[in-house]
Amino acid sequence: MSELTIWTLDWAPEGPRGLVRDLRLRWACEEAGLPYAVRTVPFDDRATNHLSRQPFGQVPFLDDGDLKIFESGAGLLHLARKSDRLMPRDPAAEAETLQWTIAALNSIEMVTVPWWFLSISGAADNALTGWMEQRLGHLEQVLAEREWLAAGRFTVADLLMADVLRVPLVRAFGDRPATEAYVARATARPAFSKAHADQMRLFEAADEERAGAGPA
Amino acid sequence: MSELTIWTLDWAPEGPRGLVRDLRLRWACEEAGLPYAVRTVPFDDRATNHLSRQPFGQVPFLDDGDLKIFESGAGLLHLARKSDRLMPRDPAAEAETLQWTIAALNSIEMVTVPWWFLSISGAADNALTGWMEQRLGHLEQVLAEREWLAAGRFTVADLLMADVLRVPLVRAFGDRPATEAYVARATARPAFSKAHADQMRLFEAADEERAGAGPA
Repeated sequence: MSELTIWTLDWAPEGPRGLVRDLRLRWACEEAGLPYAVRTVPFDDRATNHLSRQPFGQVPFLDDGDLKIFESGAGLLHLARKSDRLMPRDPAAEAETLQWTIAALNSIEMVTVPWWFLSISGAADNALTGWMEQRLGHLEQVLAEREWLAAGRFTVADLLMADVLRVPLVRAFGDRPATEAYVARATARPAFSKAHADQMRLFEAADEERAGAGPA
Repeated sequence: MSELTIWTLDWAPEGPRGLVRDLRLRWACEEAGLPYAVRTVPFDDRATNHLSRQPFGQVPFLDDGDLKIFESGAGLLHLARKSDRLMPRDPAAEAETLQWTIAALNSIEMVTVPWWFLSISGAADNALTGWMEQRLGHLEQVLAEREWLAAGRFTVADLLMADVLRVPLVRAFGDRPATEAYVARATARPAFSKAHADQMRLFEAADEERAGAGPA
């Protein structure tokens, strides 16, 4: 039996399907060949129903035997210790992988998520657009010169960075050919396809259950 | 001679003094008793003068002998491997420290930095204020029940979270007594005071040099 359990929502509306962050952990387990189970908390009352496991009311979180860990970025770094497919063991390559993993969270996603939030609640051209252009422009320069971010091969840093960049509004932002090729390259990996299909299937099955439930 | 070198700017305007993120790495080294040197890149032309070391044109970055690493969060996790004062070695306590370190970067700072940016360029009550209230409200609930975030003691997670929360506009946001007590507790530590004073002194010395330079 698997000791790894990824927790996600039992249902999600169509908009975020395929983008719920349990996908990051699924994808990592698929890349590393780590067996895992998926369990769910209710979508209804999600703001408060699992605060004891995730203090901001979000998903995913991870069980590794008795260890419990939230934040998808932390879950990824935890999984990366289990497999050098996710993070190389050579100290220089490991440091490079770590820095780009954190860059995905704190230099790129820290800009793309609030920009995306302002975009859908107001205008695509908003107060964060200049910051967004600057950061994604710098990243484009990096990606124009290499296939993967760290260690000369696919690592957990690419998994996370590609997951941040593949959000449709972000992917459509500006003209960044190297970045687009990078996102296409990462999401063409079989491990991504498997993780994505599994997430979609979970939410679709939940649709059917909801439709079949009827009044009590 | 120290093998750790923290790189920062050679000068900064008054506004960000005391808040430049080299402080995170200085603070960590002071907490852990790790010797370190500080070196600088020019403030002028900073947008392009060190892109080969930090692809977004930012500081700090860290040398550890031949290892080179950017992103303050990655630098902190790297330093945390050198000292259990920063991160405990017990697996459960380590996972808890890791998750809260990432939470500081990706659940809190991902909201506070863009909110702060919108606030200074527009209104303190802006499109991200609701998100800010929600996240800081959840964190207040956590901090009302514990002295430190992880492992029952001060860790690198607290260093980072407190550094995120001590930004004046963020600290003044709403009424959050447990959070305020937490920030006060963290920044009362001698290692913080030393790191802060050293950063201030570097920039003040640079003022004097600039003033004394005169026309060529």
